[in-house]
Amino acid sequence: MTNNANGSRLDPWVQAYASRATSMRASEIRALFAVASRPEVVSLAGGMPFVEALDVEMFRGVVNSVLTKDSKTALQYGAGQGHVSLRESVLEVMRPTGMTAHPDDIVITAGSQMAIDLIVRVMCNPGDVILVESPSYVGALGVFRAYEADIRHVAMDEDGLNPTAMREMIAKVKAEGKQVKLLYTIPSFHNPAGITQPQQRRSEIVAIAEQENVLIIEDDPYALLSFDGVIHRPMAANEKERVVYCGSFSKIISAGLRIGWAVAPHALREKLVLANEAATLCPSNFTQMIVDEYLRTQDWLAQVATFRDIYKLRRDTLLSALDDHMPAGVKWTVPTGGFYSWLTLPPGFDATAMLPRAVTHLVAYVPGTGFFADGQGRSNLRLSFCYPPPERIVEGVKRLANVMSEEAELLKTFGVGGN
Amino acid sequence: MTNNANGSRLDPWVQAYASRATSMRASEIRALFAVASRPEVVSLAGGMPFVEALDVEMFRGVVNSVLTKDSKTALQYGAGQGHVSLRESVLEVMRPTGMTAHPDDIVITAGSQMAIDLIVRVMCNPGDVILVESPSYVGALGVFRAYEADIRHVAMDEDGLNPTAMREMIAKVKAEGKQVKLLYTIPSFHNPAGITQPQQRRSEIVAIAEQENVLIIEDDPYALLSFDGVIHRPMAANEKERVVYCGSFSKIISAGLRIGWAVAPHALREKLVLANEAATLCPSNFTQMIVDEYLRTQDWLAQVATFRDIYKLRRDTLLSALDDHMPAGVKWTVPTGGFYSWLTLPPGFDATAMLPRAVTHLVAYVPGTGFFADGQGRSNLRLSFCYPPPERIVEGVKRLANVMSEEAELLKTFGVGGN
Repeated sequence: MTNNANGSRLDPWVQAYASRATSMRASEIRALFAVASRPEVVSLAGGMPFVEALDVEMFRGVVNSVLTKDSKTALQYGAGQGHVSLRESVLEVMRPTGMTAHPDDIVITAGSQMAIDLIVRVMCNPGDVILVESPSYVGALGVFRAYEADIRHVAMDEDGLNPTAMREMIAKVKAEGKQVKLLYTIPSFHNPAGITQPQQRRSEIVAIAEQENVLIIEDDPYALLSFDGVIHRPMAANEKERVVYCGSFSKIISAGLRIGWAVAPHALREKLVLANEAATLCPSNFTQMIVDEYLRTQDWLAQVATFRDIYKLRRDTLLSALDDHMPAGVKWTVPTGGFYSWLTLPPGFDATAMLPRAVTHLVAYVPGTGFFADGQGRSNLRLSFCYPPPERIVEGVKRLANVMSEEAELLKTFGVGGN
Repeated sequence: MTNNANGSRLDPWVQAYASRATSMRASEIRALFAVASRPEVVSLAGGMPFVEALDVEMFRGVVNSVLTKDSKTALQYGAGQGHVSLRESVLEVMRPTGMTAHPDDIVITAGSQMAIDLIVRVMCNPGDVILVESPSYVGALGVFRAYEADIRHVAMDEDGLNPTAMREMIAKVKAEGKQVKLLYTIPSFHNPAGITQPQQRRSEIVAIAEQENVLIIEDDPYALLSFDGVIHRPMAANEKERVVYCGSFSKIISAGLRIGWAVAPHALREKLVLANEAATLCPSNFTQMIVDEYLRTQDWLAQVATFRDIYKLRRDTLLSALDDHMPAGVKWTVPTGGFYSWLTLPPGFDATAMLPRAVTHLVAYVPGTGFFADGQGRSNLRLSFCYPPPERIVEGVKRLANVMSEEAELLKTFGVGGN
């Protein structure tokens, strides 16, 4: 590089980035998680599915079958909307939830994260208001930030997103002369809150969205991982023109294939396909055909049951360990499915400040602040029970309890926690 | 749906889309290509690599080896920057071009299309000026439109992008009170122009970019598919801080795996990783590990030679057929690598208007207008020689020559072509 009037030696392009790039920041806890991935640390942080529960020899057979049947298509570019046969199979995967659609309504994406990205890309100008739960999924917040949306958190109660709080926030936004464009919600087995909206709650939320002309993004990656036998009917099953539904194979087959989907109202779906083509040309034919072959030839519902039973045992283990070891005053949600429980610490505790100490004690979690765009969540943390085996979950909770007892001592002595 | 003051019955969200969505339009020729994909049509349109030349049994062995060695990692989420081992292997793939890098400088993406998308996402606000060649790659133009960039075409000559025209365009943009932010170029075996920039030309272009503080996106998917034994040294090999280099495995292994990469200056690379995470969380570990295993265990350079020899034969076949059959006044470029030749029709011909007639005559091409953002290109068309076998290429050129002779008759009689 020679002269560069606008740049600096550290970053010659610092003046040149798009305004949206200023909101792209490395998480402050990223460096810590590099440490937390050491094997001696019990990680209750990451949301990694327990892919080891998938039968590798079965999967190998499926992959080989795809290569035998049609390698020419599998290794080639595909359609921007996704593989037709897989779009038909997606209908079968949604069937247990009561969600129906036509294969033409479905857009296959490189993971459901990409579906969220494309929806926001098509819908949101910078400054557009998106309602999210308190807390909300960190990955979705990352998308909303990347498109410079105005993120507004709406309170949750024990039945999830609170309709009164939703109405109040919409009124507040209107009073500012703005409109709410989107609501992003995870009605079933919420990440990170571990809460599920009952059907009545869903209807209330959809009714408000209808009244206020808000489009709902319904993110439903854990739909089939229910621990109490109840598969919850998505909002989109009742209100197709108001809701974009996002599904994922990451939790019921494999996260390494990067295949998810969206079911969208017709006109929006066309734009999502065009946006998908601009972003990636097409999803991987190879991994799409593997998912499709798997769904068509294997007992995939039995595999879902296997995953579900594993996660249920781990959820039970986590809840027992919390009961046995957590100091008084700590509260947690009791998830009926999915991967997560959400803890609220007693007054004075700071989960973000406590994390380095926890990692020193060889246990990791995600501090609540990661799930808010506005600095809330310091007294919260998310525990994932999806990946570690039960005995490690117990060990992790014990270690966390020790850290918290030490914090409590410090609080009693000095009035502040350590870090 | 009930009442919706802003929407219409056809699209209730018509008022709600992001402004960038207005530039997302289905191509006018898309419907025609659905017809053109019928087997009786010789398609010289699509840029599909001839994946049938990859040994499926070898590929099967590679995939099975990945599943045997580390299915746990292959089926799991991965890092936003991409698989470390693959990033090392990418260095080997770039080695024949003279391009060096550190694995830390590399970001793996879901195809190199995604790399272009992420670069523009990080760099460009709406209205920012991007220089492109005349013509330019249709997929890149789609990205630039999606981010509402101000696309300016710069003339090419027989050595590619013309430096004088580049200077003139920069001066014109400055006179409008704007700055040029990016230059997007394909220096080797240009898509669609079939032209290659000599080293001297590359140096001139980099020097102008240096002087005017323009970041260059160097798209190099055909780097190793050279027909004359010359592997061209990328701009990025000489000027790492000024150039983001994009590479792809689609043309040398398989387009169905959707794996590409970018080599970026340090600070920009960090932002690309964050943008990659926001867009897709991570590329597919499974297909990344397949590519890596393939590169580490197979004679991948021999496979590149196989592809190259096939494409060279097809290029030769196309050029001979054009010599033999094209009416007087038609000109075409002579590519020394890659997939494409660019035709210029005699005055009065309109390649866009002629396409439906060509499809009726069972031959398809891409009209030149697709490669311009500003309506240029009506007298041009792109012919791809990558996918059809030689005898089909000859048949396709004969059919195209017939269509053009009929057009010439119509022009002579009525002064306009038919459609």
